[in-house]
Formats: sequence, structure tokens, C-alpha cells
Amino acid sequence: MASGSSDEIKQVIIMRKDLDMGVGKMCAQCGHAVLLSNSEVWKVDPEVAKKWYDTGQKKIVLKVDDEESLRKLYAAFKYKKIPCALVEDAGLTQLEPGTATALGVGPWRSSEIDQFTSKLKLL
Amino acid sequence: MASGSSDEIKQVIIMRKDLDMGVGKMCAQCGHAVLLSNSEVWKVDPEVAKKWYDTGQKKIVLKVDDEESLRKLYAAFKYKKIPCALVEDAGLTQLEPGTATALGVGPWRSSEIDQFTSKLKLL
Repeated sequence: MASGSSDEIKQVIIMRKDLDMGVGKMCAQCGHAVLLSNSEVWKVDPEVAKKWYDTGQKKIVLKVDDEESLRKLYAAFKYKKIPCALVEDAGLTQLEPGTATALGVGPWRSSEIDQFTSKLKLL
Repeated sequence: MASGSSDEIKQVIIMRKDLDMGVGKMCAQCGHAVLLSNSEVWKVDPEVAKKWYDTGQKKIVLKVDDEESLRKLYAAFKYKKIPCALVEDAGLTQLEPGTATALGVGPWRSSEIDQFTSKLKLL
């Protein structure tokens, strides 16, 4: 369910499910991930960012069970130079400062994202 | 809880709670609202957009009970020329095509947003 056609461009947001965040908190963290990762793409490949923006801005929201999984994925995408952004909460409300809550990836080519996310489930 | 200091800049995302969307679906709709409304701000006042981006990107997620409430708020913000974006679902998965799911407002001055949202509750 996390896959797509090989030349498709999509954004993937990976959320932690173990933090007991309320729905509004999760939405806000997802929003941070969307915006921060999108900015990374504009820095390295504006053409990809523009194409995605102009063609429906597909977003897929997946989940992981813990912070370690999220940080490992972040490291993997960084290693492969796929634009991404890790959201770390400021800790003003429900969480400890610096808690990693979400990871935004792309928009980027599906085929390159899917090699790391194909086993993850939709949130 | 939806208020803030008068010169503060924030983005507000207003979500419908009556649609029975799953958490992942709500996160995705919020993500659309964040990005689309942010783009509107860059068109009309890049200085506000940049200031917000560089100072923590505060986001507040609120809720309304039905589509009419969402569309009325959208009309009010448009009338006041406050940059905003209504998210209408493509209808590929859980919803009918064209269903309004979320409204992104700003980033913009809190005082101008709050006059319409001060009675809304956090999602």
C-alpha cells in the first residue's frame, strides 16, 4: 500500500504511533513534516518540487512503532541523499523536548522512497 | 486556547470532525492545508511567510462540526483577504469527490485570525 508507479513523485510522512499523541497533535506534527521536507526538496531539486506541487501533491502517511525505527529511516534517507526532515517536538505541551515525532520524505521519486518504506503500514 | 499575542504569527488548520476520517487521512488533509495555505502567504506577503518559517512555524489545529462551518470560515477569511486554502478531497479513497475536509489559514497575524476562530476548540 506504500508503493506506487516508478516515475511517480510523492511525499511520504512517517509518524510514530507509540507516543499517545492526540489527533490534533499528530496532525500538527504531520504538518511540520510536510513543510520541512518540502523545503528540503526545493533546495536540492526545485523541478521535482514544482512538478509534485502542480500535479496533486500526493501524500502518504505511514507509521512506525518507536523512535529508533524513525531515526534509522531518517539516517537511511539522508545516506541516500533523498531530501527529508525529522520533526523534533519543542516539548511545550504533551512531549519531552527533542522527542522525534515524525519524518517527512520528499516529494521524491516513489521507487527511491519505497525501497525503505514498502514494509511500513498506513497510519 | 486558540488565541495568542497580537503580533504573533501562526498558522491555523481547521479540520472537520464529522467525516469519520481515520487518523492517517486526517494527517494527510492537514498536510495539504499546511502546504496550500503557506503557498498563498508566499504570494501575498513573503516577509510574513519567511518570518514564520524562521521562528518555529507555530501551527494550531482546531475543529468544526460540519462542512457549512468550514465553508463559512473560508468565506470570511477570503473576504478579509487573509491568505487561506480550502482542501477539497479528490475522492479516491474514503470520501466523495469535492468534499471539503480542512481549511488552512496563514501563517498570518494571530490577532486577525483569532477574530474568527476564538470560539473553536482544539482538535
